Amino acid sequence: MSLIDLSKQVALGIDIGGTNTKFGVVNHRGEVLEKGSLKTDEYEKVEDFIDALYEHISPLIEKYGTEKNFDGIGVGAPNANYYKGTIEQAPNLPWKGLIPFTDLMKAKFNLPCTITNDANAAALGEMLFGAARGMKDFIMITLGTGVGSGIISNGSLIYGHDGFAGELGHTIVKPGGRKHWSTGSEGSLEAYASATGIAITAKKMRAEFPESMLNQYPEEAINSKTVHECALKEDPIAIEVFRYTGQKLGEALANFVMFSSPEAILLFGGVIKAGDFILKPAKLHMERNLLPIFRNKVKLVFSELDEADAAILGASALVWEKK
Amino acid sequence: MSLIDLSKQVALGIDIGGTNTKFGVVNHRGEVLEKGSLKTDEYEKVEDFIDALYEHISPLIEKYGTEKNFDGIGVGAPNANYYKGTIEQAPNLPWKGLIPFTDLMKAKFNLPCTITNDANAAALGEMLFGAARGMKDFIMITLGTGVGSGIISNGSLIYGHDGFAGELGHTIVKPGGRKHWSTGSEGSLEAYASATGIAITAKKMRAEFPESMLNQYPEEAINSKTVHECALKEDPIAIEVFRYTGQKLGEALANFVMFSSPEAILLFGGVIKAGDFILKPAKLHMERNLLPIFRNKVKLVFSELDEADAAILGASALVWEKK
Repeated sequence: MSLIDLSKQVALGIDIGGTNTKFGVVNHRGEVLEKGSLKTDEYEKVEDFIDALYEHISPLIEKYGTEKNFDGIGVGAPNANYYKGTIEQAPNLPWKGLIPFTDLMKAKFNLPCTITNDANAAALGEMLFGAARGMKDFIMITLGTGVGSGIISNGSLIYGHDGFAGELGHTIVKPGGRKHWSTGSEGSLEAYASATGIAITAKKMRAEFPESMLNQYPEEAINSKTVHECALKEDPIAIEVFRYTGQKLGEALANFVMFSSPEAILLFGGVIKAGDFILKPAKLHMERNLLPIFRNKVKLVFSELDEADAAILGASALVWEKK
Repeated sequence: MSLIDLSKQVALGIDIGGTNTKFGVVNHRGEVLEKGSLKTDEYEKVEDFIDALYEHISPLIEKYGTEKNFDGIGVGAPNANYYKGTIEQAPNLPWKGLIPFTDLMKAKFNLPCTITNDANAAALGEMLFGAARGMKDFIMITLGTGVGSGIISNGSLIYGHDGFAGELGHTIVKPGGRKHWSTGSEGSLEAYASATGIAITAKKMRAEFPESMLNQYPEEAINSKTVHECALKEDPIAIEVFRYTGQKLGEALANFVMFSSPEAILLFGGVIKAGDFILKPAKLHMERNLLPIFRNKVKLVFSELDEADAAILGASALVWEKK
């Protein structure tokens, strides 16, 4: 048995978004020791992006070089494939086609590199450092511009045979329902429960109810934040927008529970700022669609991770998880 | 390292159904060396049932006693809990409440005993001896009187935090849809794709279309077998019954694929005798509800196991799987 001084081990966590890329140096306790960011969309070629990333990060590696051991790099990115180390056809990133991302990173940084999609990384972050510590079976749902998910079963992420498992935002909650603006599918969870979906619901409802406070805003200002403001002022239409969203979310969650029987479902992302306006109807409609053996067992909770650091923590968790 | 002569190892597989219980002695190649059955519903007390089971089986154990090693007993049963070794509140079994089944079996047989629900056992049987040999990610759907499921992810069954995962028959495919005769839920997969559901669909459709051949049968003779007979004679209404069933099944399968991204979905049970009448629309509606990254990848196939032996093989696989 070889003893490793855990206090010396650190990982690099990198979260690649369509506009910004955040990175940080994270220790075993989930503390972000250093962090920084660069613009993703300024680099048309992925090689130039990785060069720029290296210029930002190498001073940090040198700074900690003597006192810390860098175990590796974890990356969260849209459309990332864990098995192949690739980013594939990501609609929101500037680099098209199939990008051999971890190979490029290993060559530049000379460190092991693992990649997965951003919601999977978030789930690992919750398991190692957040609200899911000690849990072996839970589902993470990220409610942002889109709806993502990461599923932990028996202590491991479910990747599926091809690395693409866990696209719960694209499961159909209402067959023949609202057409998705990008995929064209009808009635997906994302079409209702994402920030984009909530804005669509709000615009429809305010047109039906001229007395709603929501009509005091210009069209482009209708989003989950302004709906929340109106709900706090007790506008019944704004409250109904979140109730309807919560119902669709809860119906979808019931199906997920009957699939993998998680101990908890963790909700994360900008949309959860609406709090009980969404959580209470979600819980109600989840419970009423469950078989009795599943009822009143599943914790439905909000993420505990600081939103600014969660993506970096989650990505770094990829490094620790492999140990 | 100790060498074990696999040709000497055998397992007992027991499949408990509401009416009949089947048992068999199975070897490592999935050959059923001996089999038999007894009536489940003749025993009001579970202790009496286990005594009777022992009387049937102990001659087999004695017969093979000198030349074979009995590794253990695997049991498939409705509402069985793998973690606790219990059968809980099974509506179709004569024994009510919480039955400590494996404890009772171990005490009587003096052999290790493992239990899981029948669809999970069937999935293990397919992985060890059937159409899913070599696969690490697949979903087994049993289409019988009810709809059951067993989900294999990364080479293991998904049990969930409480042992009850994989109730895909009770996921909702049509919110607010057909009321389930037993659970009361609205629009579950089982309400449409089980033999019971198919009979309901057929009775509704023949009432709407007096010219259908289905009207030549008395009410109580309408079931998936008679609908199949009429479909083979090209009755368009009978064909539509299966097409509608296949559509609902396919829509549900698309959601399952986006959850765990399986290499294959295996269909098993009496309903699959309808063959392409169900399989083709199921495949069509699965594909059209999938995100592009999942399309034309998932094999949708029928079980390869002999139906008479599948339940025994699946139960025995529980013993080998633990090795």
